[in-house]
Amino acid sequence: MTIPAAKDKPLFTPGPLTTSLSVRTAMLRDLGSRDATFMTAVKETREKLLEIAGVSQADGYEAVLMQGSGTFGVEAVFSTFSPPAARWLIVSNGAYGDRMAKICRTLKIDHQVLACEETQQPNLAEIQQTLEQSKFTALAVVHCETTSGILNPIEEIGAIAAKQGITYFVDSMSAFGGIDFSLKNCQIDCLVSSANKCVEGVPGFSFAICKRELLERSIGNARSLSLDLVDQWQVMEKTGQFRFTPPTHVILAFRQALAELEAEGGAAGRAQRYRENHQTILAETRKLGFTELLPPELQAPIITSLRYPTHPNFSFDRFYELLSERGFVIYPGKVSRADCFRIGNIGRLFASDMKMLASALREVLAEMQIPVPLN
Amino acid sequence: MTIPAAKDKPLFTPGPLTTSLSVRTAMLRDLGSRDATFMTAVKETREKLLEIAGVSQADGYEAVLMQGSGTFGVEAVFSTFSPPAARWLIVSNGAYGDRMAKICRTLKIDHQVLACEETQQPNLAEIQQTLEQSKFTALAVVHCETTSGILNPIEEIGAIAAKQGITYFVDSMSAFGGIDFSLKNCQIDCLVSSANKCVEGVPGFSFAICKRELLERSIGNARSLSLDLVDQWQVMEKTGQFRFTPPTHVILAFRQALAELEAEGGAAGRAQRYRENHQTILAETRKLGFTELLPPELQAPIITSLRYPTHPNFSFDRFYELLSERGFVIYPGKVSRADCFRIGNIGRLFASDMKMLASALREVLAEMQIPVPLN
Ligand SMILES: Cc1ncc(COP(=O)(O)O)c(C=O)c1O
Ligand SMILES: Cc1ncc(COP(=O)(O)O)c(C=O)c1O
Repeated sequence: MTIPAAKDKPLFTPGPLTTSLSVRTAMLRDLGSRDATFMTAVKETREKLLEIAGVSQADGYEAVLMQGSGTFGVEAVFSTFSPPAARWLIVSNGAYGDRMAKICRTLKIDHQVLACEETQQPNLAEIQQTLEQSKFTALAVVHCETTSGILNPIEEIGAIAAKQGITYFVDSMSAFGGIDFSLKNCQIDCLVSSANKCVEGVPGFSFAICKRELLERSIGNARSLSLDLVDQWQVMEKTGQFRFTPPTHVILAFRQALAELEAEGGAAGRAQRYRENHQTILAETRKLGFTELLPPELQAPIITSLRYPTHPNFSFDRFYELLSERGFVIYPGKVSRADCFRIGNIGRLFASDMKMLASALREVLAEMQIPVPLN
Repeated sequence: MTIPAAKDKPLFTPGPLTTSLSVRTAMLRDLGSRDATFMTAVKETREKLLEIAGVSQADGYEAVLMQGSGTFGVEAVFSTFSPPAARWLIVSNGAYGDRMAKICRTLKIDHQVLACEETQQPNLAEIQQTLEQSKFTALAVVHCETTSGILNPIEEIGAIAAKQGITYFVDSMSAFGGIDFSLKNCQIDCLVSSANKCVEGVPGFSFAICKRELLERSIGNARSLSLDLVDQWQVMEKTGQFRFTPPTHVILAFRQALAELEAEGGAAGRAQRYRENHQTILAETRKLGFTELLPPELQAPIITSLRYPTHPNFSFDRFYELLSERGFVIYPGKVSRADCFRIGNIGRLFASDMKMLASALREVLAEMQIPVPLN
């Protein structure tokens, strides 16, 4: 069978993002959930995820896959790792930190939010003080807050959580696989990411990497049947199978994506490409007079946020549409409180794609009669 | 690009099941979640689902897609449609009825289970009496209980629920699209199925078809952020988009699967093929001396349950393996309380596949030195 060459627009978004054709082609098979090839794919996927996280089963870590989008994985963490006496400190500097608080509110889990500006890293002294002032059992923070693209100091925060002896959860949705770090060094008890971010699979499941000891002492906590990481883990360990129908095709795509991540040199290799993407779009857009939201020392190489042109002709919707007509999809809509738009550096994109995007930006500004360089 | 012809074993299971290559090929595209083609696919999918259900938005029905497997959709129903004073009557004659009770236990939702033998339809008089004896706000039943393959009398139960004026939920996971029925005639307030059953898409999401009025009076009920059908519906209505990253590829496959369902003559046409599959495997296995678990009047054309041979040489594990070696995957494991194995009639399978399976069954019995016809 002949497949027409993929002609889809490159996606400069934080997901769904552009994947390789070989990843998508891996979905052309129909495997049963007890098929040996499929069960091996699941087993290897779980092992490779630990490897990327810089840990292993021998070290006491486990990878648990969870059907649904990334938010389902994050909710599963709060659902499963909150015993009745749980009290979370949620450190938030953006929409995804706020979403964790919303999950706690919905699940009626006791929590306090420590919020700061979305262009600022959380204040470590303040975190320490808050933890000392009253009793918390757990702390949660977002790794790369996709709202702005800011990188949060997960290692430093991990040291504070460890000193207090509380559970430390990192939402590394948009960072895992695209930033080189180790769970151990950051003293992370549990991390969540999803198939469709820096591993460059297609969307359809999320995964948690956690300390086995945390899973073991969380039996029976879950407030949901579906979103129960312990039950999902135990059944998988016992039978090698999912409790409920797995997204078989999406998992086969993910196995291929993991192989391609390895071939690129793992998270370190991929981080280099993403950094190059970020540097390229930054250099090119600076030539046009754009300015970036974040100072370089706070910037993760995942999402680049650029301030809106101040020219009265600028309208984001028109700007987005004109780019899309030219075949370039940037992040739709505004999540940040700041007037800025966002360009994803992740997915199957290269510096050459960033250069083409910059040319399109120039064209679109011309069409909108906004003179460059912007001032 | 050239794709090797699909050579995967046909899946005689209740899912993941065999899909057409054209359905899988639809996954080769990467579309952004705000892409016009993708948003149209979602809109049309929701409309077509209503059409298959024999209802429309004008009649007051809505289709809501939910990430995750079928169980996620069922849990979302209990999570969303249980106000604080809710009390469910769960009619169960198998594992999936029992699972609804487990969901209620986990979510701490008041409920009572009315259980009967898995080879018997629920007793209508008993349902009526139970509803009259104490106060219930809702009733739930499985349409085709995949445990045995039994068809439950959803129209008759719907009439009882309607008379009591309570919410009526049907888990039609393994039946929707493969059995021709109308939500209106059955007086169903809410139904759930998933992408990977009789519509013959790939696994990755479930969907609910509900009365708008039920959604509207359920605002704020949900015990979960992710599994909130009302919020999912409201955001979709307002923006045409999912709240959280959608499984874009799986949805594109589903759109193609819906087109193929339509081409086959909708649920009525598909039911005919499934019935033929069931009749064929039944006729062929009877020649071998197998007997079926269910009498014909209780049998849905979805799953065929056959009793184990009584011969001492029979072992299900060996039987399964020998079939699998020959390229035939039947339902793995035993769900039913009866000693029987199950053959799925659904998915991209035809009478010719059933005949090939029967030949393999004959070979496997010979290899196991079990004489046929069985007695
Ligand atoms: C940091 C972070 N957390 C959570 C999410 C939510 O993931 P999903 O949209 O897959 O539910 C995202 C999505 O971009 C994210 O970037
Ligand atoms: C009737 C019924 N309900 C619920 C389910 C659960 O669906 P899933 O395995 O997709 O979670 C199934 C699966 O076969 C089913 O047949």
